[in-house]
Amino acid sequence: MQKIGSLEQAGLMPAKMQDGRLMLVDQRQLPFDFGYFDATEFDQLIYAIQEMVVRGAPAIGFVAAYGLALSAEQLRSSGHSPVDFERLFMERCQKLAAARPTAVNLQFAVAKVQAKVLSALPDLAKACQLGMAEAERLDQELVQANLKLSQNGLPLIARGDTIITHCNAGPLATCGYGTALGVIRMAHFAGLDIKVLVDETRPRNQGARLTMYELMRDQVPCQLIADNMSGFFMAQGKVNLVMTGADRIALNGDTANKIGTYNLAVLAQHHGIPFYIAAPLSTFDFELKDGSGIPIEFRNPLELTTFDGQPHSCPEATALNPAFDVTPAALIAGIVTEVGVLRPPYDFSYLKNTYSMA
Amino acid sequence: MQKIGSLEQAGLMPAKMQDGRLMLVDQRQLPFDFGYFDATEFDQLIYAIQEMVVRGAPAIGFVAAYGLALSAEQLRSSGHSPVDFERLFMERCQKLAAARPTAVNLQFAVAKVQAKVLSALPDLAKACQLGMAEAERLDQELVQANLKLSQNGLPLIARGDTIITHCNAGPLATCGYGTALGVIRMAHFAGLDIKVLVDETRPRNQGARLTMYELMRDQVPCQLIADNMSGFFMAQGKVNLVMTGADRIALNGDTANKIGTYNLAVLAQHHGIPFYIAAPLSTFDFELKDGSGIPIEFRNPLELTTFDGQPHSCPEATALNPAFDVTPAALIAGIVTEVGVLRPPYDFSYLKNTYSMA
Repeated sequence: MQKIGSLEQAGLMPAKMQDGRLMLVDQRQLPFDFGYFDATEFDQLIYAIQEMVVRGAPAIGFVAAYGLALSAEQLRSSGHSPVDFERLFMERCQKLAAARPTAVNLQFAVAKVQAKVLSALPDLAKACQLGMAEAERLDQELVQANLKLSQNGLPLIARGDTIITHCNAGPLATCGYGTALGVIRMAHFAGLDIKVLVDETRPRNQGARLTMYELMRDQVPCQLIADNMSGFFMAQGKVNLVMTGADRIALNGDTANKIGTYNLAVLAQHHGIPFYIAAPLSTFDFELKDGSGIPIEFRNPLELTTFDGQPHSCPEATALNPAFDVTPAALIAGIVTEVGVLRPPYDFSYLKNTYSMA
Repeated sequence: MQKIGSLEQAGLMPAKMQDGRLMLVDQRQLPFDFGYFDATEFDQLIYAIQEMVVRGAPAIGFVAAYGLALSAEQLRSSGHSPVDFERLFMERCQKLAAARPTAVNLQFAVAKVQAKVLSALPDLAKACQLGMAEAERLDQELVQANLKLSQNGLPLIARGDTIITHCNAGPLATCGYGTALGVIRMAHFAGLDIKVLVDETRPRNQGARLTMYELMRDQVPCQLIADNMSGFFMAQGKVNLVMTGADRIALNGDTANKIGTYNLAVLAQHHGIPFYIAAPLSTFDFELKDGSGIPIEFRNPLELTTFDGQPHSCPEATALNPAFDVTPAALIAGIVTEVGVLRPPYDFSYLKNTYSMA
């Protein structure tokens, strides 16, 4: 995680390794407090992912890779035999990969580190060394992918554009530069006089809390809007494009992202406004023909019926809380990746051999 | 306000006259606390409307009518000459009509009471008596319109339907029975086994706080969703229709309603789901050719950057906060009124002579 400093205009990283411990920026507290959460212990890592101490598909993968590599070292230093090590390590791989179902980056990162560790067995020292080296390689790959895709997306932005974004796809979510916010930040740094309308992103408010924080930190002109206001501003001709991140992209371009992304995509189409996805190739699921196979996480209804722990509806109210939706490929004008802006008709089979997690 | 009790299944009224005082249910506190706000004094009445102690287009008109009639009595009992009375009364009429700009019901109610009061001048006693009688007549008319339009809308609902509604168009907003919620409540009482998905309705949360409250009070099956989830459930085929209230309807059917209504209408069209408006004729603006002339209120950005007084984004964050949007007639499958379900192509000129505020 060290070389990030060599990137110009890098943003906040979601985690750091410090004295052998995995310390996560506690994103639940931002922008009000800035603190770290110690996710060195495996159970704490699972908790941090499930409770969204760390969130954002690439950031979850990033943290999982380091966490799993650390976990291998912990198992080794506990003195397990290679056979026991393998059994316990595999259990952890499965548990970690299943911690959140929708974003594929988690499974991608686990599969990569797992393969390296297993490849060296029964040599535990080497297994652990390869595991950590793989986490570091994935880290660098992700940081470079961020930077490259942001450069690739830059030509999509015209001087003076107003862009709607949803949820948070900035440095905290994606490690280093950002995906959707990477393109946006780069356009800002390039002096394009852009403006961003930031969807609040209910119910976890990542737009209000994290995207506003990251954009204001870089002095990108931005204003908060409620998720239900996008059509209003589009109808007034005030929106030039929409750009969001992604949690999983199927072979045909169908894309899962934070709940509300699909609403935005339909509204963009209705108004003739281009809707773009920005994501590294580690977000692609080369095993999935289309979006119908993407598992959608339903989270605790309390996220809707309460707000920061205070009641937000009637005491007995129930809620439905899908955390993601799937935007069909037909609504997506382009997918910004480190290998270029991919355009419809989408068929990513040709990338499978190079980039799949297998 | 007394005859409401004669309605079967009447809901909560937004106000009551008690010992000559105008007492408003403080809707800001619901569903957590139930209390009344004394709006007898003119300045308190303006405050109550602007700060949304009372909200909902018909309810605002209802409260304004009684408040203005009371105000005439207060001016008379202060001993003003008829000339001074007229000047001061007219000032109040103007101030009241302008308290909130988007919903036309407020202007409608003010114009009606004002005309009656002025018609009797210089006889102040008679002016006041006519003013209060007009408020009571409007009250009864509104209650009956609620009931009638709910009956008219009932055939739009099929057994087992799931309905999305936005904001709050129930008894508290509309006086007595409800408009959108009037139809929904009647379908429930008729045993149609309906289910309601209730849009939270950011940033004032009228769905989470008031619609959930009113539906649960009547034991209508309902679940809270975030405003950004509507497309997700529509795409799953789980939504049969969308129905909302209205704040102002132009001659061509273009309809202003709570921000987010337009998003819902576009999404409904995309999924082939009918989108209905339910509103009494006092919500129609017979002076407006189309929706482009509807003034849209922008409210305090703090409604978005804070939540119940707590910070909700960065300290310096700014927000845009349009409180309403306009749904073009082309997206509206029908407008449910007390004279029937009006269908496209819309042209309400023929109703103008009977129902306009002039």
